[in-house]
Amino acid sequence: MTALKHIGVLAHPLRPESAPVAATIAAALQKRNVSCWVETVWDEHNVRERVRHSEIVIAIGGDGAMLRASRVCAPFSVPVLGVNMGQLGFLAELRLDDWQANLDAVLEREYWIERRMMIHTSVVEEGRVVVSGDALNDAVISGGITRMIQLHTFIDGDWATTYNADALIIATPTGSTAYALACGGPILPPELHNILIVPVAPHLSMDRPLVLSQGATVEVQPVPHPRAEIGVSLDGVMLCHLREGQNVRVRASDHASRFVRLRGRNYFYRSLLDRLEPRTPRPKPEQRKLKR
Amino acid sequence: MTALKHIGVLAHPLRPESAPVAATIAAALQKRNVSCWVETVWDEHNVRERVRHSEIVIAIGGDGAMLRASRVCAPFSVPVLGVNMGQLGFLAELRLDDWQANLDAVLEREYWIERRMMIHTSVVEEGRVVVSGDALNDAVISGGITRMIQLHTFIDGDWATTYNADALIIATPTGSTAYALACGGPILPPELHNILIVPVAPHLSMDRPLVLSQGATVEVQPVPHPRAEIGVSLDGVMLCHLREGQNVRVRASDHASRFVRLRGRNYFYRSLLDRLEPRTPRPKPEQRKLKR
Amino acid sequence: MTALKHIGVLAHPLRPESAPVAATIAAALQKRNVSCWVETVWDEHNVRERVRHSEIVIAIGGDGAMLRASRVCAPFSVPVLGVNMGQLGFLAELRLDDWQANLDAVLEREYWIERRMMIHTSVVEEGRVVVSGDALNDAVISGGITRMIQLHTFIDGDWATTYNADALIIATPTGSTAYALACGGPILPPELHNILIVPVAPHLSMDRPLVLSQGATVEVQPVPHPRAEIGVSLDGVMLCHLREGQNVRVRASDHASRFVRLRGRNYFYRSLLDRLEPRTPRPKPEQRKLKR
Amino acid sequence: MTALKHIGVLAHPLRPESAPVAATIAAALQKRNVSCWVETVWDEHNVRERVRHSEIVIAIGGDGAMLRASRVCAPFSVPVLGVNMGQLGFLAELRLDDWQANLDAVLEREYWIERRMMIHTSVVEEGRVVVSGDALNDAVISGGITRMIQLHTFIDGDWATTYNADALIIATPTGSTAYALACGGPILPPELHNILIVPVAPHLSMDRPLVLSQGATVEVQPVPHPRAEIGVSLDGVMLCHLREGQNVRVRASDHASRFVRLRGRNYFYRSLLDRLEPRTPRPKPEQRKLKR
Repeated sequence: MTALKHIGVLAHPLRPESAPVAATIAAALQKRNVSCWVETVWDEHNVRERVRHSEIVIAIGGDGAMLRASRVCAPFSVPVLGVNMGQLGFLAELRLDDWQANLDAVLEREYWIERRMMIHTSVVEEGRVVVSGDALNDAVISGGITRMIQLHTFIDGDWATTYNADALIIATPTGSTAYALACGGPILPPELHNILIVPVAPHLSMDRPLVLSQGATVEVQPVPHPRAEIGVSLDGVMLCHLREGQNVRVRASDHASRFVRLRGRNYFYRSLLDRLEPRTPRPKPEQRKLKR
Repeated sequence: MTALKHIGVLAHPLRPESAPVAATIAAALQKRNVSCWVETVWDEHNVRERVRHSEIVIAIGGDGAMLRASRVCAPFSVPVLGVNMGQLGFLAELRLDDWQANLDAVLEREYWIERRMMIHTSVVEEGRVVVSGDALNDAVISGGITRMIQLHTFIDGDWATTYNADALIIATPTGSTAYALACGGPILPPELHNILIVPVAPHLSMDRPLVLSQGATVEVQPVPHPRAEIGVSLDGVMLCHLREGQNVRVRASDHASRFVRLRGRNYFYRSLLDRLEPRTPRPKPEQRKLKR
Repeated sequence: MTALKHIGVLAHPLRPESAPVAATIAAALQKRNVSCWVETVWDEHNVRERVRHSEIVIAIGGDGAMLRASRVCAPFSVPVLGVNMGQLGFLAELRLDDWQANLDAVLEREYWIERRMMIHTSVVEEGRVVVSGDALNDAVISGGITRMIQLHTFIDGDWATTYNADALIIATPTGSTAYALACGGPILPPELHNILIVPVAPHLSMDRPLVLSQGATVEVQPVPHPRAEIGVSLDGVMLCHLREGQNVRVRASDHASRFVRLRGRNYFYRSLLDRLEPRTPRPKPEQRKLKR
Repeated sequence: MTALKHIGVLAHPLRPESAPVAATIAAALQKRNVSCWVETVWDEHNVRERVRHSEIVIAIGGDGAMLRASRVCAPFSVPVLGVNMGQLGFLAELRLDDWQANLDAVLEREYWIERRMMIHTSVVEEGRVVVSGDALNDAVISGGITRMIQLHTFIDGDWATTYNADALIIATPTGSTAYALACGGPILPPELHNILIVPVAPHLSMDRPLVLSQGATVEVQPVPHPRAEIGVSLDGVMLCHLREGQNVRVRASDHASRFVRLRGRNYFYRSLLDRLEPRTPRPKPEQRKLKR
């Protein structure tokens, strides 16, 4: 395969400190005769055409930047290469201090592409979709400040259980290391295609994380309550408030996120556990591989 | 397909009250001109040949009986039909009070077969397998009474983390509703092929349930300790005590358990949640299906 | 002691169905020549004088009604007798179907008074108290929908830890069976005088429930964040939104709630565990007392 | 008060590397004309008389050494000063690298004494005590390897609940930071006098930590099971195996442990949270005190 020739660079629109990094990366690409574009303050709508015609997109920032870039790149199957400026980052592949050393390898396509499932969330009313969107981490249905909500929950059309909780997290495997993890959820392998459901602060109702069968659709029907205000958010961004009679339906999206990976295919658990469990003593390097 | 003609009946060898049930079922089969055999006090070794030549095996008892029957039937791909005498039962399909009403449907093959992943556990020493076995629920590596153990844990040969815990549960999706559930594990869909790892009473070490990639091998290396006594059990039955220098290796088994199912393919969540969460109020029947 | 002669009756101001119950109770009191007053739609301000001159107050509704009645009765040391209309009720002593049978015993003072600690919460800015209030269950500091907040937390003036969480619950022992319980908190005995701190959905930060020393003051200082909206609520009722530079200070209140109890002093664990754990089989009555 | 003149030094009987430390400390004491004794390989019985006539005892090792020293010192109200050789230490006050700098302050009694509640555990059979002992951390009633046990649990003689679990931990506030913490228990302030109950791996039974009223007695009655083997241990040391018909009774001990403290009375939360939550970023020193 020939080297990469068309690359986009996306700074984080709400973090101005990412703009100069984007400019430096773009300059490095141009020096290598790669055609590139840079967007600093952007929204999904206005970068779509540029993304569509790129081979990969380099996104700068933390996990939030990766989530934004993923949503715009996924419909066009364009892979994202993350350069991490944030503290915690499960999605980005490079950091501010190593992107330069790895840039040539990227241009020579010395990487593999990791695909990750997304979920598609629709707010439905009398069978009609009111609003919808994709998410790489999770859809969250939550009450306002200090208000418990009651949610009838159906799997493939059949009632499964009714949650009394602050919120309900419906997550992808990628999202299993995000908000769901803070609520007792398990860590799922990134290539899984199953939806994870975790309640936040469940009160005398189902309190175990639930992984659904591949292909399942989950539908959530809030129990009407005069003072309840219920919001739906995708990857931490508010989608809408629910009105009475509106349900939330979540299933696997037709799109997948693609990430550029330079590390070995086994990178996930090592990288994750280093961040989650700093109290665990590191064994010496020679003890980190099993002898066969 | 023709009706079933060769059926085995296995009582629970340690629960004598299951023997008369087995006899009654056998009589009902014979009345219908089905050739059958009955075993009441049996072990894996002495029923193997009979199992091999049966079309299905009816197992009587609780989940323990299903686990025993599965282990002997799986290598011959013989499906198990469970008749539940116990209180809790996630595996059996019929109960003492409904097997008769359903027997003809079974004989006419009006069922589907549910396959469930098993795990294969080997105790290895200097590359050599000392002892091994299959399990449908879980392999548990545990210290004796009140003794914390330390377990270096490798995924596909690479060090992942080191647990300080009472025990480590390495479970199948079927096992996710058994012991692992008592330790904060998630509920996994029965058809998944991924291994679940959950520590029991983790102390300042990794405390989140971990689901592995399909096909992964996990290997556990106990940190030697003069007073530690470490046992390995499969589905609650002791396999062996570990000696210093012995590791425990777990991967998906080449065999799968097969269960005879008369209920719809959607049965799992409904049946599970009814048992786990009796505090949740049942909606009226007309509210248990989503209108489409 | 002479029989009760002055009793107030408080319906739940937001639950109109409690008004006729209040009227019936008042009629029963008047028939017995007890002087009484009834309030149906009331607020703390306008019933204060009537409460002050009552010997006990009968409050009708669920736990919410008890919390409201407690806040208005506590400053005057007036005990509350709860008549439960709700499903879950840890505070009320009687139910709709047994208050009549017990009314004469109450009037003859055949009860004991249970005192329960309250907490006093102040929002402070540059050393000045902006707003404050008492709570019987908890003070909750929480972010808006799907927004994690960061909270520096000080115990008696010294930094203890910094939470990354959806919310922080600062609860009394009474509150340990309310919201805190849904977030993994322990059950504390009602007569304890210690504050309990439990984070909601803690993310890579302190995740254990913390019980403070008696007399301790906890002060919470939100880390400023441009998009964070932080609210403070007492017993589920919003007190205020926090502005930058405002801290939340919580300590034991000078007031205690008083509840009229007819059951034995040992009632708490039995009553609680019946509600929390319906899956546990009840032993036969003769097995519920230890032989000495 | 005059300076200390009679001090005992206890090495850890099972950790020979603590013996030279004990010798060095004793030499330092003798140089300062303090009368002292040293025991390296000792048991409770043979040091009792020496302990009884000491003003304080210096114990060397980790938390295990503190627990041993406490049990022998508590009946004589002799305070323990811990010198920590282990990694984790919630009880010791000094470390290998700072005891020398603090020794003169200790001799001049520039310390305060922290008292900590102990529990007294009796195994009873037909009203008769079979064996008993004190513990500073916890009494644990546990099944053998992979065996769930069923435990009827009575508080002050009344049935409270029945646990299905691997084990039941009955802990002091000191023990709340030990084994109980690994099972989801709360952190209790060291001066509390209440017993904490936490089940290990509870299965469809009460799963919340329970703090009892001060003065309560808890009695545990195992449900007989042919294959169950049940052990009772105190502070991690086996007390006995239970025979059928034997119950375990736990209440506050008449003795308390006393620890020599040089740090401020506020030391507990700071010290604890540093060890439990290394992921939390430390604020700058000037931000660790609230301005008043």
